[in-house]
Amino acid sequence: MTKTGILLIDCPDRSGIAAAVSDFLYRRNANILHADQHQDAERGLFLMRVEWDLDGFALGFDECTREFAAIAERFQMRWKLERSDKPHRVALFVSKYDHCLVDLLYRHHSGELACEIPLVIGNHPEAERWAEFYGVPFFHIPITGASKAEAEGNQLALLAEYQVDLVVMARYMQVLSSEFIAEFGHPIINVHHSFLPAFSGAKPYHRALERGVKLIGATAHYATQDLDEGPIIEQDVMRISHRDGLEDLLQKGRDLEKMVLSRAVRWHIGHRVLVYDRKTVVFD
Amino acid sequence: MTKTGILLIDCPDRSGIAAAVSDFLYRRNANILHADQHQDAERGLFLMRVEWDLDGFALGFDECTREFAAIAERFQMRWKLERSDKPHRVALFVSKYDHCLVDLLYRHHSGELACEIPLVIGNHPEAERWAEFYGVPFFHIPITGASKAEAEGNQLALLAEYQVDLVVMARYMQVLSSEFIAEFGHPIINVHHSFLPAFSGAKPYHRALERGVKLIGATAHYATQDLDEGPIIEQDVMRISHRDGLEDLLQKGRDLEKMVLSRAVRWHIGHRVLVYDRKTVVFD
Amino acid sequence: MTKTGILLIDCPDRSGIAAAVSDFLYRRNANILHADQHQDAERGLFLMRVEWDLDGFALGFDECTREFAAIAERFQMRWKLERSDKPHRVALFVSKYDHCLVDLLYRHHSGELACEIPLVIGNHPEAERWAEFYGVPFFHIPITGASKAEAEGNQLALLAEYQVDLVVMARYMQVLSSEFIAEFGHPIINVHHSFLPAFSGAKPYHRALERGVKLIGATAHYATQDLDEGPIIEQDVMRISHRDGLEDLLQKGRDLEKMVLSRAVRWHIGHRVLVYDRKTVVFD
Amino acid sequence: MTKTGILLIDCPDRSGIAAAVSDFLYRRNANILHADQHQDAERGLFLMRVEWDLDGFALGFDECTREFAAIAERFQMRWKLERSDKPHRVALFVSKYDHCLVDLLYRHHSGELACEIPLVIGNHPEAERWAEFYGVPFFHIPITGASKAEAEGNQLALLAEYQVDLVVMARYMQVLSSEFIAEFGHPIINVHHSFLPAFSGAKPYHRALERGVKLIGATAHYATQDLDEGPIIEQDVMRISHRDGLEDLLQKGRDLEKMVLSRAVRWHIGHRVLVYDRKTVVFD
Repeated sequence: MTKTGILLIDCPDRSGIAAAVSDFLYRRNANILHADQHQDAERGLFLMRVEWDLDGFALGFDECTREFAAIAERFQMRWKLERSDKPHRVALFVSKYDHCLVDLLYRHHSGELACEIPLVIGNHPEAERWAEFYGVPFFHIPITGASKAEAEGNQLALLAEYQVDLVVMARYMQVLSSEFIAEFGHPIINVHHSFLPAFSGAKPYHRALERGVKLIGATAHYATQDLDEGPIIEQDVMRISHRDGLEDLLQKGRDLEKMVLSRAVRWHIGHRVLVYDRKTVVFD
Repeated sequence: MTKTGILLIDCPDRSGIAAAVSDFLYRRNANILHADQHQDAERGLFLMRVEWDLDGFALGFDECTREFAAIAERFQMRWKLERSDKPHRVALFVSKYDHCLVDLLYRHHSGELACEIPLVIGNHPEAERWAEFYGVPFFHIPITGASKAEAEGNQLALLAEYQVDLVVMARYMQVLSSEFIAEFGHPIINVHHSFLPAFSGAKPYHRALERGVKLIGATAHYATQDLDEGPIIEQDVMRISHRDGLEDLLQKGRDLEKMVLSRAVRWHIGHRVLVYDRKTVVFD
Repeated sequence: MTKTGILLIDCPDRSGIAAAVSDFLYRRNANILHADQHQDAERGLFLMRVEWDLDGFALGFDECTREFAAIAERFQMRWKLERSDKPHRVALFVSKYDHCLVDLLYRHHSGELACEIPLVIGNHPEAERWAEFYGVPFFHIPITGASKAEAEGNQLALLAEYQVDLVVMARYMQVLSSEFIAEFGHPIINVHHSFLPAFSGAKPYHRALERGVKLIGATAHYATQDLDEGPIIEQDVMRISHRDGLEDLLQKGRDLEKMVLSRAVRWHIGHRVLVYDRKTVVFD
Repeated sequence: MTKTGILLIDCPDRSGIAAAVSDFLYRRNANILHADQHQDAERGLFLMRVEWDLDGFALGFDECTREFAAIAERFQMRWKLERSDKPHRVALFVSKYDHCLVDLLYRHHSGELACEIPLVIGNHPEAERWAEFYGVPFFHIPITGASKAEAEGNQLALLAEYQVDLVVMARYMQVLSSEFIAEFGHPIINVHHSFLPAFSGAKPYHRALERGVKLIGATAHYATQDLDEGPIIEQDVMRISHRDGLEDLLQKGRDLEKMVLSRAVRWHIGHRVLVYDRKTVVFD
């Protein structure tokens, strides 16, 4: 596997940013593998992702960070410097529906998701057998109204202990508290079983059936304080007809959820997603 | 062109309905071309569409209506008996955006829409050139806040004069009053430029861009008193990315609107759409 | 779970078939749950699928078969009478790529596939762990050029022993011999990793990449003597761009293959697929 | 409308290309609006498209060309420097099916296609009314076996006279001779009514129906000496079922052809398509 460095940038758009970044990397002998940039004309923003081979790169990583800081300051950049050989550590949260969990574990096992999955946390015990099969520690933390704060405390302790930097809610049917989100401090990806902003909230498939829509959808997004309002990473839809009852919608929906969530996770762990305002740019 | 009879039925589901209808047609020597039925288990409804060749059919049309009434009564059917050689008379309503109008006129001209289009009504004068090219009378009825009731009166008079039994709002940007809808008394098909129920109301493409969705859509539905809430006939979506600005959304959206609206019109004039509650069954 | 009877019919199209079938069922008190029919005007064929509740049905199953034979003869029908409580017994064949196998086993486990899976046969040993996890007997039957006839003999013996009536080639990378297909005598479903008839034969993703197509596909079809030429049950595609290398195609392709194959299996075991000539009708 | 300069590059991949181009533009005060690059690792190719505002750009266009030549030589680039205010001059070729022609003329009229359309050439006279409506000169050049060479000579004379630099075959049902293609010397875009490489050659919809595929497609590609073998620019598909007869396929196909061809034309005239080997990169 090629070891790569990845630079993610957003800043006010002005002349010379791309030239400065290209020049910086060129002078340090970077062999650029992918580069993608985007100008949001309306907001006057410049966004960029560059990935290069660390083999032959003239700088150590810390040095690179230090030297790039000067350029970053000049252009008022928000920026991140990442390396492919320091993979994300991902915790999967699950409730009773296990299709997304099983899908992610298999994709990880087969090499499709370049991350580590140090633990699975479930508020029900049923998912343990899957975690066990894939050799991932499973923690059962039940949640009741009264115990929620305590349960979240236990979750946070585990996330810290296992040095997790991404939580994926694989059809985890509990709302995370604002305190949890703030305290965790890293991104959280959720999948909602509708084409947001349609049918946000509870029972989207029931409501889709009732409203008589001709397509159903699923949405992967970053979880924020506002339920179902976080930046959307990926969406997809499937055609339905009057022949589809609720069971058919649930079944088609499971396929949508798996596809949409796994794509979002893959893009995130590949450092391909940039968030600004309530939106994302996916450098795919 | 084969002349056909079409029977559309919905009624409480019980045993023997299909047998009774099949038997009725068989005894009168009907050569059935298409038959489709649907049971909505949840609501206990039976819905059916049968189409047969009128050539060789043993009954005149009025006679058929009379004789079928007995069966209909037995099963408490809502039903319609239609004939393909008595095409719908369709009025197209348009404002400034003319892509849906031009698309429908061309499809009609090329034989794709088996209906008559006796007139086009616009609240702006620009669309006249298209109507004229296709040899369809055009009426310019401007609408201002003050003149709306009077304008709708003029529209209704034209619809009556031209014996219209379907109005298609081809990006007609005025809200029809409840009085107009009630007075007209026939179906009205509208196209909304979003994937309903997402982004109902004004400026859906602007709001889609702002929300950062990854797909945009369009919806054709029957217009009812409740804006954007009528039974959905057809929907479709197209993928967008951060590279798409508002102009791109508008352009992709025009293609969606044309496809979705023309399909809905084709299904309606082919007597393929059954409405129940707020939903449709499309026997395609 | 409702126990249902399912009647699948194809015969030369003529008047009265639907009436005769409806009448037959009605007189025996069948509560019809789904009925779908299709006329292929070009070939003069009538095809039908009816499904009814066996609860309250006035006939035993053998009796029903006997009595229906008279109608079948009158209309020269090819027909099958099936019952939902006698599920298919499905053997999964696999080689090294295990994504389709794992997907089908999970779907079966979660209740999405109403069949029995009495065994998995692999020409490589790696898939055993999945079979074992799901509690399905696994048989490793290696295949070399010299051993093929013997290996197929062993496979056939197992299929007979386990009373298998459907083989699913879950990315089984061996060509089945004509003798095997003839001797087995039941349907075999295969998934080909291209949008047939494009890229039939070997290495379709490589060739798709080389040809520069903008979409890749997968196809589930019945295996026949002519490789990749059997009746198509389901196909789907995914968009690709120049950004997608071979690895990306393989990965997107896996998702396509899983979706397409699992849909085909579900339709087959639900008695929803009718084959005529080289084509299928799917009564979905 | 912003006047922009567009640079299209492909060359052997090596370090420093992006830096050199960025630096070249930055020093001349270019305000870059879009930049996209692609590395084809397998072939060792670097491909790039940059677009910048000509307002405030420090160089005249000829000067820019001259100065850039040194960089181009250093990196062995194939390159083109284009300007948005010098639009393509496009000739539309048509036979009897006029849906693509009418679609392109309308899109041009409504501002969706930023090019000039100085003439339409038809081998049948029927399309004249559309050209006339849109104020475009129409030339009727009939083609018979005997007259083909002469007819192509007349076509070439017109293309030269009208300074055409792109021919679009809008369902033009004649094969262009190798001599014509060579003599014209500019790109030619064709639309084939199938998902290539499936069903290349004649009557693709008939063959799709016969083969029983579950999706039909259309392909826009550059016409080359090898029929249906040129580099693919865009493809799309639509789902069909057993309910679709030949007429339905033709009708769905028309929508596909219009979408796919108009996208290809829009990308080409926006200088977004780079051809290498038999493939295209579309910088959308």
